[in-house]
Order: sequence, then C-alpha cells, then structure tokens
Amino acid sequence: MAFKAQVLYDFTAEPGNVELTVKEGETITVTNANIGGGWIEAQNSRGETGLVPEDYIEYSNQFSGTAGTAAPPANVGNAAVPDLSFFDEFAPTSTSAPKQASNGNDPWSVWNSDPSRSSNNNWAPNAEGNQTGRNAAEPWSSGTHSHPQAYQGPDIYPYLIDHTGAEDDEWDDEWDEMKSTSGYSEPGEGGAIQRGGTHASSMKISLNKFPGFSKSGPELFLLCKQAAKGKEKISIYLGEVGPVWFYPEAQLDCIVADPKKGSKMYGLKSYIEYQITPNTTNRPVNHRYKHFDWLYERLLDKFGSAIPIPSLPDKQVTGRFEEEFIKMRMERLQGWMTRMCRHPVVSSSEVFQLFLSYKDEKDWKTGKRKAEKDETVGVMIFTTIEAEAPDLDLAEVEQKCEQFSRFTKAMDDGVKEILTVGNEHWKRCTGPLPKEYQRIGKAFQNLSSVFTSSGYQGEATLTDAMTAAGKTYEEIAQIVAEQPKKDLHFLMETNNEYKGLLGCFPDTIGVHKAAIDKVKEADKLVNTNKITAQDKVTMAKRASTMSYALQAEMNHFHSNRIYDYNRVMQQYLEEQVKFYETIAAKLRHAHSQFTTM
Amino acid sequence: MAFKAQVLYDFTAEPGNVELTVKEGETITVTNANIGGGWIEAQNSRGETGLVPEDYIEYSNQFSGTAGTAAPPANVGNAAVPDLSFFDEFAPTSTSAPKQASNGNDPWSVWNSDPSRSSNNNWAPNAEGNQTGRNAAEPWSSGTHSHPQAYQGPDIYPYLIDHTGAEDDEWDDEWDEMKSTSGYSEPGEGGAIQRGGTHASSMKISLNKFPGFSKSGPELFLLCKQAAKGKEKISIYLGEVGPVWFYPEAQLDCIVADPKKGSKMYGLKSYIEYQITPNTTNRPVNHRYKHFDWLYERLLDKFGSAIPIPSLPDKQVTGRFEEEFIKMRMERLQGWMTRMCRHPVVSSSEVFQLFLSYKDEKDWKTGKRKAEKDETVGVMIFTTIEAEAPDLDLAEVEQKCEQFSRFTKAMDDGVKEILTVGNEHWKRCTGPLPKEYQRIGKAFQNLSSVFTSSGYQGEATLTDAMTAAGKTYEEIAQIVAEQPKKDLHFLMETNNEYKGLLGCFPDTIGVHKAAIDKVKEADKLVNTNKITAQDKVTMAKRASTMSYALQAEMNHFHSNRIYDYNRVMQQYLEEQVKFYETIAAKLRHAHSQFTTM
Repeated sequence: MAFKAQVLYDFTAEPGNVELTVKEGETITVTNANIGGGWIEAQNSRGETGLVPEDYIEYSNQFSGTAGTAAPPANVGNAAVPDLSFFDEFAPTSTSAPKQASNGNDPWSVWNSDPSRSSNNNWAPNAEGNQTGRNAAEPWSSGTHSHPQAYQGPDIYPYLIDHTGAEDDEWDDEWDEMKSTSGYSEPGEGGAIQRGGTHASSMKISLNKFPGFSKSGPELFLLCKQAAKGKEKISIYLGEVGPVWFYPEAQLDCIVADPKKGSKMYGLKSYIEYQITPNTTNRPVNHRYKHFDWLYERLLDKFGSAIPIPSLPDKQVTGRFEEEFIKMRMERLQGWMTRMCRHPVVSSSEVFQLFLSYKDEKDWKTGKRKAEKDETVGVMIFTTIEAEAPDLDLAEVEQKCEQFSRFTKAMDDGVKEILTVGNEHWKRCTGPLPKEYQRIGKAFQNLSSVFTSSGYQGEATLTDAMTAAGKTYEEIAQIVAEQPKKDLHFLMETNNEYKGLLGCFPDTIGVHKAAIDKVKEADKLVNTNKITAQDKVTMAKRASTMSYALQAEMNHFHSNRIYDYNRVMQQYLEEQVKFYETIAAKLRHAHSQFTTM
Repeated sequence: MAFKAQVLYDFTAEPGNVELTVKEGETITVTNANIGGGWIEAQNSRGETGLVPEDYIEYSNQFSGTAGTAAPPANVGNAAVPDLSFFDEFAPTSTSAPKQASNGNDPWSVWNSDPSRSSNNNWAPNAEGNQTGRNAAEPWSSGTHSHPQAYQGPDIYPYLIDHTGAEDDEWDDEWDEMKSTSGYSEPGEGGAIQRGGTHASSMKISLNKFPGFSKSGPELFLLCKQAAKGKEKISIYLGEVGPVWFYPEAQLDCIVADPKKGSKMYGLKSYIEYQITPNTTNRPVNHRYKHFDWLYERLLDKFGSAIPIPSLPDKQVTGRFEEEFIKMRMERLQGWMTRMCRHPVVSSSEVFQLFLSYKDEKDWKTGKRKAEKDETVGVMIFTTIEAEAPDLDLAEVEQKCEQFSRFTKAMDDGVKEILTVGNEHWKRCTGPLPKEYQRIGKAFQNLSSVFTSSGYQGEATLTDAMTAAGKTYEEIAQIVAEQPKKDLHFLMETNNEYKGLLGCFPDTIGVHKAAIDKVKEADKLVNTNKITAQDKVTMAKRASTMSYALQAEMNHFHSNRIYDYNRVMQQYLEEQVKFYETIAAKLRHAHSQFTTM
C-alpha cells in the first residue's frame, strides 16, 4: 500500500546509490514502507523512485503499520509526581530549552562567582543531559548544555587526521537496524539520525513521562510524596574515607573485542558489531555502537542526576571502516565499559546487566522495553538511595558541594592542560622531529657517499660507519614517530576520559546546588503556606541524602582517579624509559662501528 | 708640530668619548701625531679637538715622522718577473677588479659546465684572495671573489644570537696597536680599518710588488725565467696514496689558551690577548686577534695558490668581551692554528714559525718585516716545489683537477646540508623542544597539586610521585637545551671549518685550471712566435709540478678529513648515547617513585 508523505528535511542521495534526493516540504509517495533498516522506498512527483530515511518524512494522513515517527506510547506514570505549581515562577517555559544556568555561560560560574547570590539565576541545570550533546564539545563555554565529548576529535590525535572517510558511513551505521527488530518505530529505540541535525530521541521519553513541566528540578525529589515503589535500593555506608557506595564483592568486568563488519540490505548498509564478554557469565554478547548509545541514554536518564555518566566515544570520527579507527573506537568502548563496570551503582543496575548478559533476542527486546519504561529516572533516582548515616545540616551539604565543584573545576583545568601540551608534543613527535632526525640521517649518508667518491685509499672504514650512523638516525626518526602511540596515547586517552567525566560534573553538582537553593527557600514557602513545616523537614533530609550520594560518588571518583593516574603515569614513564634506552642502544652500536683512535 | 691633513672618510665619534667627528674632504689640523694606537689628535675648523683614526686622514703637504698612510717602500723585486705582455689580452684591466670568472657567477661553474670551452672567459681566479673577504660569506655565488668565512655568523649558532655588543668594540680591537711598536705606519702592518668599509692592506703589498699587472695569472710561474733563488724548497714524494707533501717527523702542535683582557690609551681601548704555546719550544707567546689576522694574510699571500688557507674565525660576531664569545673565538683560533700546525708546508714556513716562537719583541718585529717583503708569494710558490716523480701529461693534469673540483664541490654541498640540518636541530633543541618538556613537567606538577587539594585520604603517594615526575621533565628540558653544546656544537664546528676550507678550493683549483688553459694555448703562442718551443716544454713541465702540488694537497686534505670526521662522528655519537642514557636513568628513577600495582 502507498501513502503520501511530507519530507521534513533535505536529503541528498549518495551518488551511485539507490537513494532518492528529496527537499524539505516536498510531497512524496511511499511505495514500499517495508524496506527496513530505517528506510522507505518513495517516488517523487517526477516519477523518480529511491530510498529515503523514514525519519526524514512525515505521513500525511495515516500511519503505515510498520513505519511511523509520531505517536508516543501513552503509557506515562504520574503517581509519584507532586504538585509543584508553586515553583512555576522558576521553571523554564520551554520544555526543551537549554537550562538557564548554562545558557551561554560557563556552568562552573554557578559556583565560582558568588555562591550566596539569589537562586533565581541559578535554576538547576539538568543532570540528565537531555540533549545528547554529540556536537557540543566544550560544556564550560558552549551555549548548548549537555554532556561533553570524551573525545575531542581529530585535533587531539593528529594521527587520526589523515584518515578520511565519508561522513555517510557513520550515518549509515546509525541508521540501519537489526533485522529481527520490528520495533524501530518505538520512541527511544536509539538510532537518532545524525545527518540533517535532528535531535536524539531520549528527550521525547523524558518529556512524555512528565508532561507539562520540566522534570529537571530537584524539587521533584525533595517533595515527592512517596519512597521508591520497587525493589531498587542504593546503599551508602560510612567508610574510612567518608560516605561510600556499597561495593559488590566481585568486581564486574568485561572485554570488548572481535569487531566484525556486518552488512544488510543486500550489502547496501554495513556496520560493526563488537563482542562483549562479562566476567560473570563469560558468555559473549554482540552489540553495535547504536546499542552502546542506547545504553548510554538509559544510564544518563536513570543515574545522571547522581552519577556523572561519561559520553560514549565520539561517533563523528571519520573513516569508520578504517582498521585504526575501529581499533580506536573499540579501545574507547572498552574504556567506557570498564568505567561503567567499575561503578558499583551502574554495574549492578538492571539495564546494565541486561546489556551485558541478555540470553537471547527475546530477552533483549523485553529488557529494552522495560528499561525504556523505567520511571526511576532523573532526580527520582535519589528516592532509591539510603544512607546509613546521620542527616547532614545544610551548611555542611553546601560546603561539600562547593568543595567538589572547586576540585572538579581545577582538575578539569589540569587535565586540559595535559591534553593541550600532550597534543602539541604528539604533533612534534610525529611531525617535525622525526623529519629532522631523518634529515640528519640523510645528511650523514649523503656526506658518506661523497666521501666514497674521493678515490682516496682507506675511505671505507669511515664511510661504512658514517652510513650506518646515518641509517641509525633514520631508524631513530621511525622510533620517535611511533613512540606517541606507545606512551603518550594512553596518557592522552586517560586524560581524555577524565575530561569527559569531569565535563559531567557541572550538571551533577548543579542538581545539588539547585536542591540546596530550594531548601534555602523552604522557610519562605512554609510562611506563605505553599508547603507544610513537615515538607521543609523532608526537604532538608532529602538534601542530606543527595549530599551523601554526591560524597559517595566523589569518593568513588577519587579512588578511581588515584588508581588510574598511578597506572597511566607508570605506564608512560616505563615506555619513555624503554624509548630512551632503545635509542641509546642503537647509537651505542652506531658508535662502535667507528675505528677507535 | 702641527700638520694640515685631509679627511679621507667620514668618521663619527663615539658619544662620551674623546673622539672627533670628521667628514670626508674636511681639512683638519693634526695637533698630536704621537698618540699611538693608530690615532692622532686633531682640531677642526670650529676649534674642536679630539682623536681621529690616522688612516682616515691624508697629510696635505708633508709627512709626520711617525704617522703616514702613503709612501710604500720602494723595495720591490722584479728580477723574476717575465715579460708577459702577450697575455695582456686576457689580463683584467683593473688591478683590483674581481676576477672575471667569479664576477657574479658560481666559481664552480668554471668546471661544471663545459670544460672544453674557450679559455677567454675562464681567466684564472686568484688563489690569494686579495680581498680579505670579511663581508663575503658565500664564495660560490657572491660577486666579490674572496676566501669565505669559516663562520657563517649568528644564524648558524642561535646561542650566540643574544649576545649583543657594540660593533665598535670589535673595531677598537683591530685598531689599537702594541705600544712598543712604532712601525704602524708601514704598509701591510695588519690593522685594516673595518669600520667605514675601507679595504684591507694586503692588496697593497701584492700590487706594490708587481706593479702594472695582476700577479694572479699562473703564467707568471709557467714562464718565469728562474727557479727559486732562496733556500726554500717544498718537496713532494710518491706515497702509497699518490703524491704527498713531505711530512716532518714530529707533528707541530700548539695550545691557544688563557685569553686576557688588556687595555691601553688609559683604558680607552681594550683588547684580548691569547697565549699560544707550541709543543716545540713549550714557551708561550702572546698574540692578539690582529696578529692572527696578519699571519693569515701572510699565509694567504704566500701559499694561497697551492694550499687552501681557511679564513680566520669571523671578527664580526658581537659581544666581544662576553665570556662565551671569547671562549668561542679562542676555540676557533685553536682550531685554525691546529689545522695550520698540521699542514706540513705551512707549519714549516718561516713566517709560521716566527708567529709561534719569536724570542722577543725585536725578533717579532724583524721577522714581520722580513715576512712582509717575501717575494715568493702567489703563484711563485710553485717555483719552490720539487716533485720526485715523472712529469704528468696535460690530460692527466686536467683529469685530476676536474676530479678534485667535483669532489670538493660535492663535499661542500654535503657539509652545507649538515650545517643546515644541524642548525635547525640546534634551534629545535634549544627552543621549542625544552619548552615543551618544561610544559609537560609543569602540567604533571599542576595536576599533582590539584590532586593534593582533593581532601581524599592516601593521596600523597601518587602526588609525590607525580610531582617528582614533573620535575624530572623539567630537568629533561634543561638537559635537552644544553645538549647541543655538548655534541652538536663539535659537529657544527668541524663542518663549519670544512665549509671554510672547501670555500678556498675554487680559488686554488682555479689557478690550476688557468694554468692548464695557458698550456693549451702554448702551440698557438709558439706558432705566432710569442714563446719558444722550449717555453712550451717548460710550461707543460711546470703545469705538471702544479698538478703534483694539487694532488699532494688533496691527499693531505683527504687524510685530515678522514681523521676529523672519524673523530667528530665518534664524539657526537658518544655524547648522544650519554644524553639518551642520562634521560633514561632519570625517568627510571621517576618511575620507581610510583607505587607498584
């Protein structure tokens, strides 16, 4: 059956492909809605037929049974939502607008300027990063407020600069679906179109769940009428270093390996599938990048208010099927997964366990649907947190919050300094420096070959040694050029990862700051009978819980940080020692070839 | 007594000095001609009195007894000069004009284009470098034909760039005289004024000795009527490698050391005096730079046609009294003296022996006068050469000459390549590279100090180690910056010295090429009765002698070259090994400060 459809965005067909170029506003006829992989076959008014991404169109009158972009599920829970109309004066009017605190400003400025000022301009930045932020690399200065990129792009790693590849490759990967999944019309089923600038799907879910106001404010939790309904419970203990998460006895771990290129739609679309093997089941599961992305969205939705969930490695790096790129992405997915596995709260969550150890396709699909309907998201995650510790007073909560803010900002600066310096060093080590060693090597060899032409007796002992010395410098050039991959790479990767992680803190800390501000307003609200005196006590108690969560998270961060930097520094220095020793040995050998005098 | 004098060149007094500013053409009154140090006291028409360089003036009517610039000694030998009027058609018309072959052209082109072409445009380049060439750094392309600089100037050694100093310091050094010497009015008494662009004095000597035509052509030797009058005799033997100079059993050597700053004219003028101790007498003699320069001029005059006499280290480097400059000049004077000592012909010459081992002031003065009157200069040096070997035919002479030309040109290119590459490497090692290591070190330390502020327990083990690692990179920065002085320096100095030496070869080889051309013309000259058949035989025989001299010199060059490059390459590699080993050891220590995991 054929439907009329409106084209929502311009789409330009790949040359030599079966695609159809369409323009925004154009009316087309869908001739086959069952192509799959996010594509439909359509015919334009000139009678040309070809494939068009289904999300680029809107059906004019009715839905096809298998392909549609509207109609969110009506299943929206609202039992837990308190009446928060008295906060309306502070609430953003547009549900999808960037948060005010970070709209064009450095989000750190919330903390670093005057912490005692009115809260009106400090309306809580949302910890959930409703915008997936793939295009926002610098959260401290960007106007769009979102979780930052863990990967700064080709500028950081010059060795990736040369790898060119069509942007469309990337987009293709995001677009096609697993054949067995018929539910690609479900909202939130990953696969947001990157090309054409459409937004990610996670926003829809959040808005659908709490229609009519932003769910971003911590007041949702501070004043909610009930505790968590389910069995979910996140415990915090007082450890040696202060509040800590409950850590499972066995540390979850997984291996991301064996990237395989798959293709579908008769080879038209291709993708990379990774094998993930957790140490719990030791049974590999397969996931494509889009599934990681789906997991990321779920974790961000669920834990983002309490736990910084670092972005996935950037999708936009070019050359997707180039060997080195795949290796790099796998390495970064491994790093991301390792970090998630190491987190006691994240790793024990149902959605994370599902991702790592689903039994079969049906299990996966069922689990996915369940995860997407999870209501304990956003600030509501705090309803599941139980701290076995006395309540903190507001001053202490505030002081901790500010301390963490200062530290993470300072570390962010420190990490960026290392990245900047490291990037320059990388460029020098792979660019001008080896070129120079090569030229030194060539110069020695050239002079040696001039000497050979002298016709003078007994020249060979010198010229052989000089040629060897020249070749040694050419080898050194090679060693120098390859060294960054052996040491600087890990230093950069680790710091890049931390840059991404630190970029999440302004949001996470912002939720707390907003909560503190709300608690500060409690007296006024009680006086104007907006809330009861008991509500005020509840708010303070819940802010204390939030603070314990933040402290536990900071202690988790510190512990990991010490481990990570110990490891990466040792690794770096070890490789540096090897580097200098290798060169010294080579030069010693070159030296030995000269006659003693 | 007071004399009227004409000012020959503009002279601008140093501010705050007792000098007098005078203009070219101005008439002044010499109020005291006995000031010494190359200065006279004079009064201008406005009644102002001050010191003026005596070479800047010309006495209007009569000479002062102690100061004068005209009146060359009449003592000019001409018994040995043949009638060469038939060569007039080839002779340059201006006695001081640059040789045609190199006037604006690459002198190598004489050889590298078409060796069989007419000799008319190949008129012999003069081997004696009548112009001292202090301002002509590039003999291969410069219009002024002269011996090149052994030192390219501050561009080569970036670490000298920063040493600023008044140019006048340099000039002062050249100007002032030893107090005890009254003979500074003699022509050829060194001390050419560098400031104001006046020419050096050596030209005068040459022209005075053979007035009326250039002595530059080899025909002077090819057709001279007599053998050497004196006891001078330079022997060439056939050694294993071919024709070689006669080498003395004990190798002459000397140490240039102990630079002392002296001053005269009540502190107005100051200079540096070096102590030179030859291994023959083991008795130190003192010489200032200007005496070295005098020696250079004598050696160039006497041997330049047969032996490349490298220029002295450049005078124009700034910062004369700056410690590093003095050290550098001394090192280069040592290098120059060592090279001269090593040369069997130069080292056994009377003038060189005088310089190294004059007994007292009187001995030095007498020896100087004698040396300045030496007539066995220019191509006439060949009259003293005796080769114990059969005469060579012209084809062989020509072939050898061309071979040497090709080799020296190729080596000149090779040496310049090393200098260019080395200079860039020097800049990188002393500039951006240590800055980068410093920034890496700072970045580690900064991050470490952020960590210290975390308030987290057990931070110190990591932060202490990270700070130490950061400091290690700062130390590495220092090591990197200082390394070029330890290794690259000697590589550069040696190649610089060879660049200077190689720059003399076009002149030396040019004399031979010109001689070959003359011999080729012999038939025509016999046919037109310009010369006798016997003259032709003599010419060929003498060209053979010249060729033996060139071959002996090339073999001397090769032997030295192999020795020098063996030594410098070993030294360079040895220091490079130490460099890399030192850094490796430092990093190993830094690594050990991290906790094992």
